[in-house]
Amino acid sequence: MMNNNPSFSFHIPTKIVFGCGEIKKLATEELPGKKAMVVISSGSSMKKYGYLDLVLRLLTENNVSAIVYDKIQPNPTKAHVMEAASICKELGCDFVIGLGGGSSIDSAKSIAVMACNKGDYWDYISGGSGKGREIQGALPVVAIPTTAGTGTEADPWTVITDEEKQEKIGYGNRYTFPVLSIIDPKLMVSIPPKLTAYQGFDAFFHAAEGYIAGCSNGISDLYALEAIRLLYKYLPKAVCDGNDLVARARVAWASTLAGMVESTSSCTSEHSLEHAMSAYYPALPHGAGLIAISRAYFNTFRNDCTKRYMKMAEVMTQSKSNRPSDFIEALERMQKECGVDQLALSDWGIKEEDFERFATNARDTMGGLFQFDPRPLSNEEIIAIYKESYR
Amino acid sequence: MMNNNPSFSFHIPTKIVFGCGEIKKLATEELPGKKAMVVISSGSSMKKYGYLDLVLRLLTENNVSAIVYDKIQPNPTKAHVMEAASICKELGCDFVIGLGGGSSIDSAKSIAVMACNKGDYWDYISGGSGKGREIQGALPVVAIPTTAGTGTEADPWTVITDEEKQEKIGYGNRYTFPVLSIIDPKLMVSIPPKLTAYQGFDAFFHAAEGYIAGCSNGISDLYALEAIRLLYKYLPKAVCDGNDLVARARVAWASTLAGMVESTSSCTSEHSLEHAMSAYYPALPHGAGLIAISRAYFNTFRNDCTKRYMKMAEVMTQSKSNRPSDFIEALERMQKECGVDQLALSDWGIKEEDFERFATNARDTMGGLFQFDPRPLSNEEIIAIYKESYR
Repeated sequence: MMNNNPSFSFHIPTKIVFGCGEIKKLATEELPGKKAMVVISSGSSMKKYGYLDLVLRLLTENNVSAIVYDKIQPNPTKAHVMEAASICKELGCDFVIGLGGGSSIDSAKSIAVMACNKGDYWDYISGGSGKGREIQGALPVVAIPTTAGTGTEADPWTVITDEEKQEKIGYGNRYTFPVLSIIDPKLMVSIPPKLTAYQGFDAFFHAAEGYIAGCSNGISDLYALEAIRLLYKYLPKAVCDGNDLVARARVAWASTLAGMVESTSSCTSEHSLEHAMSAYYPALPHGAGLIAISRAYFNTFRNDCTKRYMKMAEVMTQSKSNRPSDFIEALERMQKECGVDQLALSDWGIKEEDFERFATNARDTMGGLFQFDPRPLSNEEIIAIYKESYR
Repeated sequence: MMNNNPSFSFHIPTKIVFGCGEIKKLATEELPGKKAMVVISSGSSMKKYGYLDLVLRLLTENNVSAIVYDKIQPNPTKAHVMEAASICKELGCDFVIGLGGGSSIDSAKSIAVMACNKGDYWDYISGGSGKGREIQGALPVVAIPTTAGTGTEADPWTVITDEEKQEKIGYGNRYTFPVLSIIDPKLMVSIPPKLTAYQGFDAFFHAAEGYIAGCSNGISDLYALEAIRLLYKYLPKAVCDGNDLVARARVAWASTLAGMVESTSSCTSEHSLEHAMSAYYPALPHGAGLIAISRAYFNTFRNDCTKRYMKMAEVMTQSKSNRPSDFIEALERMQKECGVDQLALSDWGIKEEDFERFATNARDTMGGLFQFDPRPLSNEEIIAIYKESYR
């Protein structure tokens, strides 16, 4: 079993509806109210591909009226959360639907929180300059992902950036699990190859970090290893042919499983290190940042959880592993097959001088994740990870 | 993947707290009210081993008052459900705690239903002479299992017998999931070897039936194979040494996983066939009945899902399987190691003349499960299964 923790708890109250074409269930599932706010990105894809129209039509069939908030950016901001929450309150929405990528669904969660709680969103955030107050509840959230990566459809987490403070911080509790998530891989065929890879690796690292985390356990291990196995096998196929629905479905399911890892174990500091980078360089996609630092990051812990590295290598390659570096090699191979093995921090204009403030920001804003690392990371090691990923 | 169903849903709203000594969390977890009815069996074990006192003390620490209903029988009856529900209403209990084996926890669920709905429990049952009416809700249920087998702590199901009608029927819906289940393997060390085996095999068949069921899917398969793997390895150890806490914990966790299989896939007709037997012979323990018919039952479908039989054999023996009968042989070996390979229906006074009415009762009361069999079973085949298990 190799479980770190013989005691653990499991609580994922979300109803998950999964499958190609299952978006149609939005018309028949019991929804948590009669008036919804549908949150989408400021980009054109939800309209262009007809997903927004489809969702609005299905809501009408289910006797739910809807308003649309369409300003969410790739790194969603506190300003938009506050604006949408105020509209939500004003118009008396019963629940919030996040339609799109992680940014829209995360925003939906945070909007749902601020529609029910006073003051500023950062009053409730822990970490950075957040005040860490407790919330009294939140509107129910329905998640309809059109990307496969964040896992936000199966976890309570939402990551919002305060642009002024350059703080990108995760937040979540029992109120911020979606009540219903509909994962329809057919809505994902339009994702371009590069983004498919970035997002898929985000899911991969949720699983891999959750598997080496100090709080891993019998249930999170089960989800993590299955997600890792599926992504190794199917992510290159989904990147290569976006219309391969079998691959899309496996990757989408792996992403949801990796979200369940985030609900039962935790990410480690790889995510803190990445959030610090994209807080300063908002154009850097989260998944690309993770990929760029991943080999150096996982190399750092290579000798700290050897059995777990070998187990990950085994479910990836489906053959016996004798050394922890088999995992690093399998990861490199997978990145090569997905065409993302050459990513470097310098590609996004990051400078070597940034590393110190990245390291400080990582601990200040998402320092909590460091406690789940296989062993404590020194500041020198963090800088070394950034350096090795710079090229 | 070998999934039968590319579309499926997942919804297990129960918060599961697992681990040796975790019963202490009853004092600190948020409970769904201030007044509880604690449901235990009419036997002496909950009092003798101090579990009832412990639970009452922890409830007091959590500022919850409690009354005790202690009449539940091994095959719990409708009469007791109705009586306890009426007490529950009269005294204004906020929630119901099932403490003990499946009979106590199942009763707690059914009591919670009847504390909120009018008329007779059988008005809401589907199958047999039940009227299949919809319920409007139920009191919250907390499950504290002291046996490892039913999985009722992680599923919505409750099995109650109407003694007058000789109908033993399962029931469940979204209202009958426990809101909280605390699984503490330390509370299981006192189970005698024979019952440990009976209960453990009940869990095993939840997993194995759920794995060959037509409604199996990506998430139920994950739970099922892990439960099968753990039970094959650890159930003989727990039977051999009841104080082996590692084995007890693995078996308890496997049983909970198997309950999650019941929440995401389904039992097949093996359970219908057994319920029919213990409806007429209440002294027959459910697990013993399942064990007695299991080899004949699984032999019947040997050629209908060959890959799945081989996969089960592989996770059990941890070696490559080439023929579906490897599963039957591994099952026999496991039963031998647990000392239950010689069980026969004749041991409980069952007569060959009973088989016809068993077959009729199985279809009448729990016919729904037959739809999940790998292929339709004929009446002749059912009789043949009983005959082969008679000896």
